[in-house]
Amino acid sequence: MHVQIFTAGGTIDKVYFDARSEYEVGEPQVTEILRAAGVAFTYAVEALMQKDSLDLTDADRAFIAERVARAEADRVILTHGTDTMVETAKAVAEALGPAPSKTVVLVGSLTPARFKATDAEFNVGFAAAAVQTLPPGVYVTMNGCVFRPEAVRKNRERNRFEAVGDPTRP
Amino acid sequence: MHVQIFTAGGTIDKVYFDARSEYEVGEPQVTEILRAAGVAFTYAVEALMQKDSLDLTDADRAFIAERVARAEADRVILTHGTDTMVETAKAVAEALGPAPSKTVVLVGSLTPARFKATDAEFNVGFAAAAVQTLPPGVYVTMNGCVFRPEAVRKNRERNRFEAVGDPTRP
Amino acid sequence: MHVQIFTAGGTIDKVYFDARSEYEVGEPQVTEILRAAGVAFTYAVEALMQKDSLDLTDADRAFIAERVARAEADRVILTHGTDTMVETAKAVAEALGPAPSKTVVLVGSLTPARFKATDAEFNVGFAAAAVQTLPPGVYVTMNGCVFRPEAVRKNRERNRFEAVGDPTRP
Amino acid sequence: MHVQIFTAGGTIDKVYFDARSEYEVGEPQVTEILRAAGVAFTYAVEALMQKDSLDLTDADRAFIAERVARAEADRVILTHGTDTMVETAKAVAEALGPAPSKTVVLVGSLTPARFKATDAEFNVGFAAAAVQTLPPGVYVTMNGCVFRPEAVRKNRERNRFEAVGDPTRP
Repeated sequence: MHVQIFTAGGTIDKVYFDARSEYEVGEPQVTEILRAAGVAFTYAVEALMQKDSLDLTDADRAFIAERVARAEADRVILTHGTDTMVETAKAVAEALGPAPSKTVVLVGSLTPARFKATDAEFNVGFAAAAVQTLPPGVYVTMNGCVFRPEAVRKNRERNRFEAVGDPTRP
Repeated sequence: MHVQIFTAGGTIDKVYFDARSEYEVGEPQVTEILRAAGVAFTYAVEALMQKDSLDLTDADRAFIAERVARAEADRVILTHGTDTMVETAKAVAEALGPAPSKTVVLVGSLTPARFKATDAEFNVGFAAAAVQTLPPGVYVTMNGCVFRPEAVRKNRERNRFEAVGDPTRP
Repeated sequence: MHVQIFTAGGTIDKVYFDARSEYEVGEPQVTEILRAAGVAFTYAVEALMQKDSLDLTDADRAFIAERVARAEADRVILTHGTDTMVETAKAVAEALGPAPSKTVVLVGSLTPARFKATDAEFNVGFAAAAVQTLPPGVYVTMNGCVFRPEAVRKNRERNRFEAVGDPTRP
Repeated sequence: MHVQIFTAGGTIDKVYFDARSEYEVGEPQVTEILRAAGVAFTYAVEALMQKDSLDLTDADRAFIAERVARAEADRVILTHGTDTMVETAKAVAEALGPAPSKTVVLVGSLTPARFKATDAEFNVGFAAAAVQTLPPGVYVTMNGCVFRPEAVRKNRERNRFEAVGDPTRP
């Protein structure tokens, strides 16, 4: 099993620069998480961008979607900021078309991976299983659940992802 | 989605008692890991035993297998020591019979969950996705991979799980 | 031995709020650090303010200095942001006058205490020893060293504290 | 300021070997702790032995005491297991004689440094300040306090160090 991993920044990769008393997106943390976990599957990691997901433009999203669509691997994990993860998931789903040939899982974390208390390791583990076991399609995996892009939202007040009602019903 | 979690001890739950300069199996760590991850699925945790898996007897294994088989939930995670995880997986598979009605995932960690550097959070995340996405059957999820009980072994020298050759071939 | 601890915010207490993708000063971390270390001396913790030290005003500094000067304890630790720690140390020294009757140690961290890799625990441990062993006076304890307020600066480029030359010489 | 650091094993350096389901003394953790803390003083680390302190013999203790006594540096930290730290401190004090020319601080941790929750970083920070600020002599620094070898014991039931009554009084 081979997994292509793309990273797009977001909270999971945030580091703190005391020199500027600021908090910025740093190097992809997924590589370190997979290394520490001793995973036996093969993978490649490519950083597509290092942005807070609120700063992603439509052009960024189109670029990400195209790169995912064109990837040779049929298992793709995309680490991404949580605020616009659902929008990017929809863009990727559209780029893959109605009969996708690959499984794409978007994942991130609500707390930076560098924190002592973080959901990053758990979430990456969850995504690693989801990408290997789910049928072709695009999924958002957050808070220990698998969501379809069209049926999930980030509840910012509660700071968690939750299913939204069936969009085909009134 | 509801998940029943049973715990059987093992490295994942090991703590250190300085008073005795010893290392013993403590409280189930999976509860804390799921809480920290903010999972949105519901679950119940029940500790079946707190043993190093090398100390599990055939009677222990039979007891565990029966409890898994009799569980009402059709999604079960069993945290377990790594040294005899495969044996217990086989015992559970036998107890479930040829047409299992539930998905059972065995998971543990090679380093105690209380260590700074540990595979515990990643592994529990992996198991949480696997138990929700895999069809009925019994699985071992370690090192970021899904294994069938009859096709996996722990390589003690390399300290990792690996697939074994197809047992039906010579 | 009794130690009065005042907190004034700064990097050591910074937390991350994903809901706003922002990084703010949170609850004093020194309490948790001392609790986890199992210290046998008695102490009280009082939060004077929760600010990034770049945002401290002269009035804030005067308030902090007065509270330290008026404290009943003769051993005081003040956790503080690193960017203006030296200025506050000088203000405290001035408030204590030329013959101080108490030992005051200012300490903070270059990385938030909530990070996996942080200097916070080490620094608080260092300050806890310094406040118990040093003679009356005001000290800055960072990077494993004891500095006098008039002979230290934060080198922002190198992100560390360093001694400055004798200010009485040309 | 230059500090010579000797290590003698003990809980602070304990690692876990899953392959044997055992817990053994590993590489000195003090080096990593000092590096992570970004200390500005210079230091050298030399491992004298890697043992559980319950396994230290009188010959081991004599060897350690002699190495400390013969060290060129006048500031020495000795990391050591907690169970017999006091005995070794007394042996070092005897080797230094009634008018010691150097400051020697013994420190360890009640929980291994590799644990998420550990007193190791705090304790090493405490020792680093103590060795720089205390007058010549031999000290045990545990639980955030400075003890004299003849006036401290490890209370094994409470798993902490505590002062013992003045041995010169009835």
